[in-house]
Amino acid sequence: MTQRAPELRFYDAETALASRYREVRRTTSALAAPLGPEDCTVQSMPDASPTKWHLAHTTWFFETFVLARALPSRSPYDARFGLLFNSYYEAFGERTPRAHRGLMSRPTLDEVHAYRRAIDDEMGRLFERGLDAEIASVVEVGLNHEQQHQELILTDIQHVLSQNPVRPRYFESAPPLASNDSNGGGHAHAPPSLAWLHFPEGLRTIGHAGDTFSFDNETPRHRLLVPAFSLASRLVTCSEYAAFIEDGGYTRPELWLSDGWAARRAEGWEAPLYWEKRGPAYDSFSLHGVRPIDVRAPVAHVSFYEAYAYATWAGARLPTEAEWEISSERVPIAGNFVETGLLMPRPLRETGTAGPHQMFGDVWEWTASAYAPYPGFRPLAGALGEYNGKFMCNQMVLRGGSCFSPASHLRRSYRNFFPPGARWQMTGIRLAKDAT
Amino acid sequence: MTQRAPELRFYDAETALASRYREVRRTTSALAAPLGPEDCTVQSMPDASPTKWHLAHTTWFFETFVLARALPSRSPYDARFGLLFNSYYEAFGERTPRAHRGLMSRPTLDEVHAYRRAIDDEMGRLFERGLDAEIASVVEVGLNHEQQHQELILTDIQHVLSQNPVRPRYFESAPPLASNDSNGGGHAHAPPSLAWLHFPEGLRTIGHAGDTFSFDNETPRHRLLVPAFSLASRLVTCSEYAAFIEDGGYTRPELWLSDGWAARRAEGWEAPLYWEKRGPAYDSFSLHGVRPIDVRAPVAHVSFYEAYAYATWAGARLPTEAEWEISSERVPIAGNFVETGLLMPRPLRETGTAGPHQMFGDVWEWTASAYAPYPGFRPLAGALGEYNGKFMCNQMVLRGGSCFSPASHLRRSYRNFFPPGARWQMTGIRLAKDAT
Amino acid sequence: MTQRAPELRFYDAETALASRYREVRRTTSALAAPLGPEDCTVQSMPDASPTKWHLAHTTWFFETFVLARALPSRSPYDARFGLLFNSYYEAFGERTPRAHRGLMSRPTLDEVHAYRRAIDDEMGRLFERGLDAEIASVVEVGLNHEQQHQELILTDIQHVLSQNPVRPRYFESAPPLASNDSNGGGHAHAPPSLAWLHFPEGLRTIGHAGDTFSFDNETPRHRLLVPAFSLASRLVTCSEYAAFIEDGGYTRPELWLSDGWAARRAEGWEAPLYWEKRGPAYDSFSLHGVRPIDVRAPVAHVSFYEAYAYATWAGARLPTEAEWEISSERVPIAGNFVETGLLMPRPLRETGTAGPHQMFGDVWEWTASAYAPYPGFRPLAGALGEYNGKFMCNQMVLRGGSCFSPASHLRRSYRNFFPPGARWQMTGIRLAKDAT
Amino acid sequence: MTQRAPELRFYDAETALASRYREVRRTTSALAAPLGPEDCTVQSMPDASPTKWHLAHTTWFFETFVLARALPSRSPYDARFGLLFNSYYEAFGERTPRAHRGLMSRPTLDEVHAYRRAIDDEMGRLFERGLDAEIASVVEVGLNHEQQHQELILTDIQHVLSQNPVRPRYFESAPPLASNDSNGGGHAHAPPSLAWLHFPEGLRTIGHAGDTFSFDNETPRHRLLVPAFSLASRLVTCSEYAAFIEDGGYTRPELWLSDGWAARRAEGWEAPLYWEKRGPAYDSFSLHGVRPIDVRAPVAHVSFYEAYAYATWAGARLPTEAEWEISSERVPIAGNFVETGLLMPRPLRETGTAGPHQMFGDVWEWTASAYAPYPGFRPLAGALGEYNGKFMCNQMVLRGGSCFSPASHLRRSYRNFFPPGARWQMTGIRLAKDAT
Repeated sequence: MTQRAPELRFYDAETALASRYREVRRTTSALAAPLGPEDCTVQSMPDASPTKWHLAHTTWFFETFVLARALPSRSPYDARFGLLFNSYYEAFGERTPRAHRGLMSRPTLDEVHAYRRAIDDEMGRLFERGLDAEIASVVEVGLNHEQQHQELILTDIQHVLSQNPVRPRYFESAPPLASNDSNGGGHAHAPPSLAWLHFPEGLRTIGHAGDTFSFDNETPRHRLLVPAFSLASRLVTCSEYAAFIEDGGYTRPELWLSDGWAARRAEGWEAPLYWEKRGPAYDSFSLHGVRPIDVRAPVAHVSFYEAYAYATWAGARLPTEAEWEISSERVPIAGNFVETGLLMPRPLRETGTAGPHQMFGDVWEWTASAYAPYPGFRPLAGALGEYNGKFMCNQMVLRGGSCFSPASHLRRSYRNFFPPGARWQMTGIRLAKDAT
Repeated sequence: MTQRAPELRFYDAETALASRYREVRRTTSALAAPLGPEDCTVQSMPDASPTKWHLAHTTWFFETFVLARALPSRSPYDARFGLLFNSYYEAFGERTPRAHRGLMSRPTLDEVHAYRRAIDDEMGRLFERGLDAEIASVVEVGLNHEQQHQELILTDIQHVLSQNPVRPRYFESAPPLASNDSNGGGHAHAPPSLAWLHFPEGLRTIGHAGDTFSFDNETPRHRLLVPAFSLASRLVTCSEYAAFIEDGGYTRPELWLSDGWAARRAEGWEAPLYWEKRGPAYDSFSLHGVRPIDVRAPVAHVSFYEAYAYATWAGARLPTEAEWEISSERVPIAGNFVETGLLMPRPLRETGTAGPHQMFGDVWEWTASAYAPYPGFRPLAGALGEYNGKFMCNQMVLRGGSCFSPASHLRRSYRNFFPPGARWQMTGIRLAKDAT
Repeated sequence: MTQRAPELRFYDAETALASRYREVRRTTSALAAPLGPEDCTVQSMPDASPTKWHLAHTTWFFETFVLARALPSRSPYDARFGLLFNSYYEAFGERTPRAHRGLMSRPTLDEVHAYRRAIDDEMGRLFERGLDAEIASVVEVGLNHEQQHQELILTDIQHVLSQNPVRPRYFESAPPLASNDSNGGGHAHAPPSLAWLHFPEGLRTIGHAGDTFSFDNETPRHRLLVPAFSLASRLVTCSEYAAFIEDGGYTRPELWLSDGWAARRAEGWEAPLYWEKRGPAYDSFSLHGVRPIDVRAPVAHVSFYEAYAYATWAGARLPTEAEWEISSERVPIAGNFVETGLLMPRPLRETGTAGPHQMFGDVWEWTASAYAPYPGFRPLAGALGEYNGKFMCNQMVLRGGSCFSPASHLRRSYRNFFPPGARWQMTGIRLAKDAT
Repeated sequence: MTQRAPELRFYDAETALASRYREVRRTTSALAAPLGPEDCTVQSMPDASPTKWHLAHTTWFFETFVLARALPSRSPYDARFGLLFNSYYEAFGERTPRAHRGLMSRPTLDEVHAYRRAIDDEMGRLFERGLDAEIASVVEVGLNHEQQHQELILTDIQHVLSQNPVRPRYFESAPPLASNDSNGGGHAHAPPSLAWLHFPEGLRTIGHAGDTFSFDNETPRHRLLVPAFSLASRLVTCSEYAAFIEDGGYTRPELWLSDGWAARRAEGWEAPLYWEKRGPAYDSFSLHGVRPIDVRAPVAHVSFYEAYAYATWAGARLPTEAEWEISSERVPIAGNFVETGLLMPRPLRETGTAGPHQMFGDVWEWTASAYAPYPGFRPLAGALGEYNGKFMCNQMVLRGGSCFSPASHLRRSYRNFFPPGARWQMTGIRLAKDAT
């Protein structure tokens, strides 16, 4: 947060911030609206959290990091909620183990909604009274944090519903998806063929700088030498990935990282998560229920290990995060985000331009880069310093956002990260190559 | 089920059966009434099931074993419910793994209640049309089965609520328990001191016979030679059990079975389940929330291993199931069952009689007997043969019923059984001794 | 141990005891002789122990229970050996966890043999000086204890060698087994067909009494009412067991106990331990290496769960231990014990008598009886009281001894016990039936 | 391997190669010489291998990658050895699971030594006949591979011996260590105080190039932009690490990575591996047995997680591997390697020079760099391509070599790698800082 002209920034930005606060909070509630109290309570695996927990945790975040700081004499809404809804902030003491979030039948969903409304009211009054730049910057963190949980609400409920033998849908009825009209392989609308876009060697600059919001892990903006490389003009499609499977991709250890092959064997992977063999083709489970895969759409729900194996099979590799960020420089941040309402990746239509296409939205793109601090990285002070830095080990960086991401949440410098075996996120593949 | 005078039995019994059906089903719903959809969805461990599952499974039992058999042309209420609500009947094909019952957010609680009503309506029409003796006997099994699940609804929701860091109560407000008025040790109402009741050696007969209902595992009634023994006149109290703890009961391996000691170490047991040290005394979590233990009440929530260690410490042993059944011969089947509404064990008041007291109700009593077939045991034919026989290994027999049991469900010959490490059931201790 | 005529018993028995001591100790060493230091060091699973550990533990037993008691001022041979070679006696303090016995590369095999010789020398001097009846009785326990470990040396090294991909043999060369001459099914020497031997109901007496040695778990001798039953005249053969497999025995849950079916699935059992499918037939790994099964020989290396499933499939059941003991009353304790040197079960030849045959030797016979204390059971005082009593839970009784058992170790009242899932012991099946 | 002037290289290099082959192989055998067959058989954890396996696997490597390739018509020494002694080459088919290497009692240690001699004889004949450049380069790989296993023989047997409750020594008698003369804190010989060496920003070049041997993962040599940084002049000492412990280093989550804190809790870490609290001080187990730590010596047996937490506590960070390599440019490759015979880290003496000191030998230094391919990395063709590349995930790079490493094995560009939780290797800490 810049300190220049604080007075000016103070009033104008505050109005915008209050408005943005209301908008983000409303969106979160809207995402939970199709779900009943039972749906919102279930935790289907330790990595995923119940919807109810997401609704309450994001609220606890504002209560703890904003209200408790701005109003030191204030009493907590419920003194027990820290124990229940703190995620991982060691600075705030004991908390419920992650894997036990599905054991909390109380507070009820109604009680959590009441909690949301009460904190929103308090926040509204705080906005009216005005807040200083430091608190405003924490509100910004809180809103971006809540947007991350918006995406998690969708990925996690998809996993919950997938575990139910009767495979319920998130939506009451599946919308008629334009993208799905020629499923089964009509070539009329096949995506444009994959082209390679060349980038010369150069001293480049990546990372975030300037007045606008970013997470601490995107800073400092810094220079680095990037060798010449080529980037694929589009994402890998389900059709291409199915060819990898048919060519024995899941049975050839030479294509895989050692840990990847071990995971594949231990977990019995034979296709992306949610894919189910049906005769010669595949169905896939999504928020729309079980439907045939759209062979033209980007493949999703693959782990880093599978992305790596696919890339090796294809005679290519994954891009580094620096290569990805450089390549995105002139690409507008537009695409199939949560706002399209599709909630599934969408095939690329002929565009007439060279690309790269699909850089933002559809699926998060696994990179070859381990999640590590940028040179000179400094975590935020205080408990918010736990937000990003302490996870910089055993995770891989993903870039670009997905069809579950809010558009306003993304940046070219945005660094998402997950362990290499994670598959329940909306994750896919873009290829790269060394320059020849 | 006897075949004598089927006509007579047919009409009269049917009316009684229909009435009893309505009564049992109503009770089940009443037990779930204080719980919301979130409570009814959570599964807190693989051994326990969500309330919603109990509500649906007992209904599926009637649909599958009664309606589908009585009305062969009938369509199932929902073809997917077998997959969801079959417990362990291999004869009915694939089913959801036990540990995954908490993943079913759908059908919702409302939908399960609708399922219950629909099957109840069908059953009502079946009762009106009349049913033959064989079907009637299966209805009897189904009602006794549902009564078992009534008890499990209570034991399982107690465990669910105990796992919540905020420790909610099953009851909105704890009733003023007369039994708890002098908690802290007033001697005015201390239970009568433990006396030993002597039984001479003899050829005895145990097991169920006759026209009335029993489970197959209680048959055949048979003779066996029982050596002379002594039985304790009452249950072990919390006060006595606390003395065992204070005397190092949980730190002295010589008191324990080898497997029990291993379980104690692995699980970190230092007191019964739900007990929590508070200063020099103990609190306990029950359906009434966290309250000080009533030192005069029977100890509950101990495993067989703990019961064995306590008995060894006390210079005694646990009774065999034959000893228990013989001792119960003249004891009326009366006591603190679910109908008292206490839902916790109750201290014994002075009675003026020799006893044995507290044989029925309060807590199930661990016996020294491994659960095994009686000589000449024959399981029921068909899928119902899976009900009892296939569990006759690695389990110990319990006798007498608890404060969670319906009174009409119990018999002197009733054989309950659980693995020796189970603690979440309402289980306690009665001592026995070899005659000297 | 009787107290009658102690003087007489003292001198005569002592000479016999010293002689028996030397014989038992020599046998143990002889069983280890074909094995090198590497073989003697490996532990292939937590349940089994390295040969070196058996050699040392049995020696520690005499040092601790006999020498340390008889010679209170004596210094231990090596003060660290209790930590290493105590098995499970809580009374003697800390010890190495069972699963870590294979981590002890030191002391070396040579050092353990030196330990054995040193303790044998001390024991020899003790025998020369004379020992009182109480110490003599502990020596008896020690010798029987060592004989149990002789059998374990064989079962455990068989498991070790089986885990080696190159499948080494315990014997340098496999002996020409007469019993194996018509493997593949020559009917000339097929075992006599299975007959049912009938026993009427009666008040019977089982258990050990008298002056001779027994373990405490065989006492007290006591009466019990045994209903009429029939016992199979011989053991179940490999041929019969193969028919069970071919009839889908491992794919039909209705034949299995619930825990057995779960174990079968979790472990992937499709045949007895050590059986390997080769075309339409089976090979089996034994101390003689991999060889075709002898279809006429008793099946071995089945768990209680498999024995139960086989019996159910055969329309029979397993005998109780009382039935077994009663049936053995007139059967001489003779058979295929370790002394035959075969070290594998042997087909039954035509005998001309009704039987029961093969009651002793060949394979331990699973009974339907859970291992429990006899009425009035009192464990030995002191640490030896841990020998048997504390294992009386979650185990099933086996009777009769095996081709790995020393002849002098067995009695009609002998109670062996293992958990129902154990398969690495030399365990087989005899059928029984209710009288009709 | 260069192709220039192959004739010249052929003859001269071959003689040197043969000589080096004999030397390396002799060293391996010498390292195993103090160990008996029992020591050489034990596997103490899945990550570590028995000495016998190391002796055989390194031999199998030459047989498989050199002899089988150079002499296509040759029969294998023992056709079963691939199954036993292949480590992880998927290209060579099935192999024994890593965790089962301790189950192989056969072949015996003597048989493995015979295998080594036989392959050495064959290799000797091959050297006499002459080998082409391609085969020679594989021999180079094999020798470097064997040197890696020399280090593993030491780390793995240290772990084996540490698991033995009696704590045996690798050496019969501990040598009088000059480095240990003032243990307990004499300040006369305290190491020089830690200084910071500054390196300006610059385009640097790292990686291996040229004719001499390197592993594929050190290539290609490439340029990168390295920001200004400071490197510590020496390693972190035991004394400094003890101060971290005393300051609550193991109880303060804010110092740790999230995964590191989870590992610390799960494993119960309270000090480096092999440290044992004794009063106010620490003992440590090494190949010399249990001895007081030398507080002046570099700390060893810490995981990356602990190194990270220590660096955070010290207000510093770990160096990247590029920073380390740049800093080492003018440092001679000399230090406390396996050839000193100390087999433990040695305190730094006053040197009179600025340093950096202790860059080579003593302990491997954890870097902040995840193990990843260099830009343009190409694995070797064929099975040897599995050597390095497939492990480039979930591992951290270590630099510099240790007191267990052969001097001739190391290079400035050498990249060692282990998972961040590994502690049984000889691993320590050097600090770095951003330039200020």
